[in-house]
Amino acid sequence: MTWKISNAELSQQVLLNMESIFALGNGYLGVRGNFEEGYGADMSTIRGTYLNAFHDVIEIPYGEKLFAFPDTQQKLVNNIDAQTILIYLGDEEEPFRLDQGTVTAHERSLHMDRGYAERMVQWRSPDGKEIKLTFRRLVSFTHRELFAIQVRIEPVNYNGPVRIVSTVNGKVTNYTNANDPRVGAGHAERMKVIDTDVQGDMGYVVDETFVSKLRAACVTRHDLSTNADVQLQADEGQVTYTASFTLEEAVTLTKYNLYTDSLRHGEAIVEQGTRLQESLKELSFEQLLAEQTAYLQEYWKSADVVIENDAQLQEGIRFNLFQLLQSAGRDEHSNISAKGLSGEGYEGHYFWDTEIYMFPVFLMTQPEIARQLLLYRYSSLDQARARAREMGHKQGALFPWRTIAGTECSSFFPSGTAQYHISADIAYSYIQYYLAEQDKGFLLSNGAEVLIETARLWAEIGHYYNGAFHIDEVTGPDEYTCCVNNNYYTNVMAKHNLKWAAKSCAILKDYNPAGFKALCVRLGITEEEITAWEKAADAMLLPYDEALGINPQDDTFLRKAVWDFDNTPKEKYPLLLHYHPLTIYRYQVCKQADTVLAHFLLEDEQSEETIERSYDYYEGITTHDSSLSSCIFSIMASKIGNVEKAYEYFIETARLDLDNTHGNTKDGLHMANMGGTWMSIVYGFAGMRLKESGLSLAPAIPQDWQKYAFRLNFRGRLIGVSIGKDSVMLELVEGEAIAIKLYDEEVRLEPGQSVKKALR
Amino acid sequence: MTWKISNAELSQQVLLNMESIFALGNGYLGVRGNFEEGYGADMSTIRGTYLNAFHDVIEIPYGEKLFAFPDTQQKLVNNIDAQTILIYLGDEEEPFRLDQGTVTAHERSLHMDRGYAERMVQWRSPDGKEIKLTFRRLVSFTHRELFAIQVRIEPVNYNGPVRIVSTVNGKVTNYTNANDPRVGAGHAERMKVIDTDVQGDMGYVVDETFVSKLRAACVTRHDLSTNADVQLQADEGQVTYTASFTLEEAVTLTKYNLYTDSLRHGEAIVEQGTRLQESLKELSFEQLLAEQTAYLQEYWKSADVVIENDAQLQEGIRFNLFQLLQSAGRDEHSNISAKGLSGEGYEGHYFWDTEIYMFPVFLMTQPEIARQLLLYRYSSLDQARARAREMGHKQGALFPWRTIAGTECSSFFPSGTAQYHISADIAYSYIQYYLAEQDKGFLLSNGAEVLIETARLWAEIGHYYNGAFHIDEVTGPDEYTCCVNNNYYTNVMAKHNLKWAAKSCAILKDYNPAGFKALCVRLGITEEEITAWEKAADAMLLPYDEALGINPQDDTFLRKAVWDFDNTPKEKYPLLLHYHPLTIYRYQVCKQADTVLAHFLLEDEQSEETIERSYDYYEGITTHDSSLSSCIFSIMASKIGNVEKAYEYFIETARLDLDNTHGNTKDGLHMANMGGTWMSIVYGFAGMRLKESGLSLAPAIPQDWQKYAFRLNFRGRLIGVSIGKDSVMLELVEGEAIAIKLYDEEVRLEPGQSVKKALR
Repeated sequence: MTWKISNAELSQQVLLNMESIFALGNGYLGVRGNFEEGYGADMSTIRGTYLNAFHDVIEIPYGEKLFAFPDTQQKLVNNIDAQTILIYLGDEEEPFRLDQGTVTAHERSLHMDRGYAERMVQWRSPDGKEIKLTFRRLVSFTHRELFAIQVRIEPVNYNGPVRIVSTVNGKVTNYTNANDPRVGAGHAERMKVIDTDVQGDMGYVVDETFVSKLRAACVTRHDLSTNADVQLQADEGQVTYTASFTLEEAVTLTKYNLYTDSLRHGEAIVEQGTRLQESLKELSFEQLLAEQTAYLQEYWKSADVVIENDAQLQEGIRFNLFQLLQSAGRDEHSNISAKGLSGEGYEGHYFWDTEIYMFPVFLMTQPEIARQLLLYRYSSLDQARARAREMGHKQGALFPWRTIAGTECSSFFPSGTAQYHISADIAYSYIQYYLAEQDKGFLLSNGAEVLIETARLWAEIGHYYNGAFHIDEVTGPDEYTCCVNNNYYTNVMAKHNLKWAAKSCAILKDYNPAGFKALCVRLGITEEEITAWEKAADAMLLPYDEALGINPQDDTFLRKAVWDFDNTPKEKYPLLLHYHPLTIYRYQVCKQADTVLAHFLLEDEQSEETIERSYDYYEGITTHDSSLSSCIFSIMASKIGNVEKAYEYFIETARLDLDNTHGNTKDGLHMANMGGTWMSIVYGFAGMRLKESGLSLAPAIPQDWQKYAFRLNFRGRLIGVSIGKDSVMLELVEGEAIAIKLYDEEVRLEPGQSVKKALR
Repeated sequence: MTWKISNAELSQQVLLNMESIFALGNGYLGVRGNFEEGYGADMSTIRGTYLNAFHDVIEIPYGEKLFAFPDTQQKLVNNIDAQTILIYLGDEEEPFRLDQGTVTAHERSLHMDRGYAERMVQWRSPDGKEIKLTFRRLVSFTHRELFAIQVRIEPVNYNGPVRIVSTVNGKVTNYTNANDPRVGAGHAERMKVIDTDVQGDMGYVVDETFVSKLRAACVTRHDLSTNADVQLQADEGQVTYTASFTLEEAVTLTKYNLYTDSLRHGEAIVEQGTRLQESLKELSFEQLLAEQTAYLQEYWKSADVVIENDAQLQEGIRFNLFQLLQSAGRDEHSNISAKGLSGEGYEGHYFWDTEIYMFPVFLMTQPEIARQLLLYRYSSLDQARARAREMGHKQGALFPWRTIAGTECSSFFPSGTAQYHISADIAYSYIQYYLAEQDKGFLLSNGAEVLIETARLWAEIGHYYNGAFHIDEVTGPDEYTCCVNNNYYTNVMAKHNLKWAAKSCAILKDYNPAGFKALCVRLGITEEEITAWEKAADAMLLPYDEALGINPQDDTFLRKAVWDFDNTPKEKYPLLLHYHPLTIYRYQVCKQADTVLAHFLLEDEQSEETIERSYDYYEGITTHDSSLSSCIFSIMASKIGNVEKAYEYFIETARLDLDNTHGNTKDGLHMANMGGTWMSIVYGFAGMRLKESGLSLAPAIPQDWQKYAFRLNFRGRLIGVSIGKDSVMLELVEGEAIAIKLYDEEVRLEPGQSVKKALR
């Protein structure tokens, strides 16, 4: 049951959300769950096909443009549309359309174990012709360029002429909404068709973006199960496949669309697409489905989380993990955008969401994808260096707050560029990767350079005051408080960053003296500099309030008035949509976890008591207006022993998109929250931590659950963790013997053996 | 000599600056000093005619638009152009143009005592025809709609056919510069011609703005001193006057242009213009000039500042005072824009510059104009209330940081809307007006309401913390430090505002109990509220640093690192053009006087020692990148007894535009700085102050000066102040006997008598 998301509704709002829910993708290519036959004129739809990182460049307008405000931003482009398949019945050519005739049965399902989506419609035309249609579609995990649709047409009461018209349309625009000022009307059209043609049984369309001059091609081939009068022709802007036949028994059309682009496939994108089509001709749709199943079996083997006795939450967590897999970029051009490949929200930009909310899932289940995400950031290190110079910093690298191609795309710096913590977040993910994999070769080839250049940023912008190292004028994760001094989160993350820049030098000096020396020469690292990082880390100011016994969010946060929550009606949330930022900044009110997040990421920096008091304090003033918040409060509620509160936060987030609780699922899925649900379970309930001392667990179980289980992919091992009412069962599913920590106890896991321990 | 600004240069850069320098205006109508005949194709020019407050509405673009960011702004519109007069010589119609032929003599002058500009050109055509042209132009102080040009054509070696073509052109655009990103190309064209016609000896053009739908008309009449073949015709977009005659002796053409607009003249703007033309027919150009002289005599009687033995500075201060008079709006629609009516810089917006830098000049020389400036703000009080609500404030009025029509036009809030001090600055000007004029009727009718509504703003956004009243998240005058808590300037000005809101209630309760009661009912004022203002004022936190003995600019300012001035090359100034704002905000570095300005405006809030130490501290970290800075440092240098330093600052500012020391005089004159030079003399060297205790002086004289003198228009008296090397002479020029303070001594001034006292 819980491997399948099902939905039968046909109302406007549900359909629009379902376009995101039923989106298919493989990290490279993403297709929203639009209907092949289109919609009625009064139905709104966001018809979308996306290639990760495939973008155009857009000017950023400003009323008043100050120095080093970015001139342009990138925008994910809605790509060539291959979803359309129209079906006409009878000599009078009655079109199959849901806004005409009668739907006698309807059901769609997303198969998370088999990697495809299915839609069954039984439909009677206005004239009374009834047929049954079954659409199945997949975006292949094993052939990244492939998006295939199969439609099976079965007669119910109708036998007679059928004409199928299937198109590949290059005249596409991005979504705009006149009522949503965040979507500029001028940005809708970002590509033009530069070529369409037919070659043998294939047709193709080539588009080019206006400014970035990136090219994408879709090469399409159709396969029909019956004899028919078939035409394939290229017109201005599209290719059209037409098949006319007499429906007597079930007929199946399969449409294979191969997407290539100039970012990954060089200049000869049509040739590449054609070659790929040829190579796939051997594979039937059923074989492709079998490949999907095999791929997902492997994925779920390490990634699945089982929640017994709660089908709703089970469905939620699996859906989230499935969508994360579909969204994660696998090459140096791409990452995971805030909405994955499921929609156009946030312009397809990559944020810190990746490192803090999604990277951990891959790190502990699919380390190879985690490594790819790190390589994406490494590939933009030079741009981050250039941005630091542009900002006036003599050394270091400043990563962009939001970007696709590596340059800063944020136009409102107080809650954009000012979030310097992104650089420490990226450093943190490299450190976590090292802690998990202990890959010193990668540390030498990539990691150390990132850690060093980000450490240099802190050394550059920080300064000593009364013996403490201060970092001024930055914004922490909480976007309801901007441009402050000594944001606790930023400072503690920068401290970690500086410490690990120094530590990685020590590790590499020992591991590969020659390699380290070469690195020192290349980056101009001196012993004095390393010492300075250590000194700054040791002297880092971590604000602490004696009276409250908590870490203030910044130097002056606790001196502000507390937001008047009592007199803020419910409809005024999220606050950012109802109050000027300055008014929000003026008060103690948090959009999301900030200090609380820092206490999760670096829990050893403060006492348990400080962390608990801080949790209580910030919980009282946090609105969770960001979808990045509740999961962290869930994890931290678990940490401080309040599992039931953790559970409440968890259930708020687990089905956020499935239940559209934030009301904007249509614009795309909330990817960071999806990672957050996994983290709420694994870091939260199960108390998993990854530190220099190794892997540890401190499991608990919510009242409502009987049992939950997950696996961890750690240093070549696959470790099964199953937590029941009274006990935890650990199993070394794959790999050599290893010791991990359970609560404070070391537990040795032997191949193929299980260890059962009591729950504390 | 020093009543005349002369210039004979013809280089591109000088000419462009001179367009601003030779601008004429009367507070309603302003015309840049462009050449009637136009320029060569390779010459750049900003051809401008402006009606104060006559604006179009423009959408403000944002990359990321947050709540309550203004959707639109106003922009001063370049109006119908009546400057053009073309002259053709001979049957071959050789055009008079400076880029052809030879200029044998050239001189232009601005007559600050007579209110007109003159340009003499002796010119020989390529064919050798030589004539002498004398252009005189005036914008009437007594007939605000009138801009008149007279050209006298004298034969030198040429007698023969002459054709004059004089146009009134409605096809005008605002200035744009592709190299200046602050000027949007899409904003150039803001008006269209909606009517042109000829009625008798008059022709007119009517334009309408695109969005604001304001209309302006120019009704023009020509008067030629010789018989000629004259044609007057209206074409699409313009009216053209043509006169052909034979040049034998000097011929004079006078062009009377009457500007009316729908803001001031209702719907029938052409009829109004025509009627005004008729009424002016009796007056010759010479009579108009005589009126100008009479008007200016009256102005200079109270406004003139005499600096003996320094013609350069004398010229500078007179020029500044003349331009202030030309720029100040005299009705409820208009104020003084940052560039006056001399250019398009800052979109013609009004800022706090008016209240803090220009209002004082008028208050003490032309109180009627000062009162008009107050009325302008009063007229937008409802908009300020609405803006406060929009910002989320339950009470009070928040004046816009920049505006024409009363709504916020600032698109970058950290150094725009966040400058809440504008509301206290406006309150301050009302208080100053009361202190100068003691006009309780005006306090009741207008002043108190402004003081109360602004006080309510502070009561609303401030809060008590540890017994002190805090104001968080505002920006002070220094735009290199934004969005801080307890900005000293803002807090001390808010304190004054709160105190005077309460005080004005006490004054009015006594002055007019019934009127006050009505006010209380209308505004809902209670005794408790008044008490709360007093309490907040008394408890206002005024940051003080014990170690340094100075007032920190804000709560955390002194904890930041000091900007690395030693390693900032000269070409990196002004910093705002070379560093990202965040990088600037991170350091102790001031664009302009902030705490030092507060110490000037409210000197009794701190001890002399604190003020002196603060001056020294801030002087070391202030770049004076704003033209509003040096004058304040000059005044305060005088206050702390360092007259020579005051003098250095003064000479930097006195001729800022005449010498184009900021390099952007072409975009318009720096009006606030012009007020500042007067203030440097009167408040600075002469130590004038206006307090509840009355008017006081504490004069000193710079080493280089022998004597300087000025007058003060105070409570119906005109007081002459003349300061020599050793003594100060006070004279009651007009009005009844009055006592003022000289240093600490009370001096009684009797009508027609002088009092001589020693300089301390």
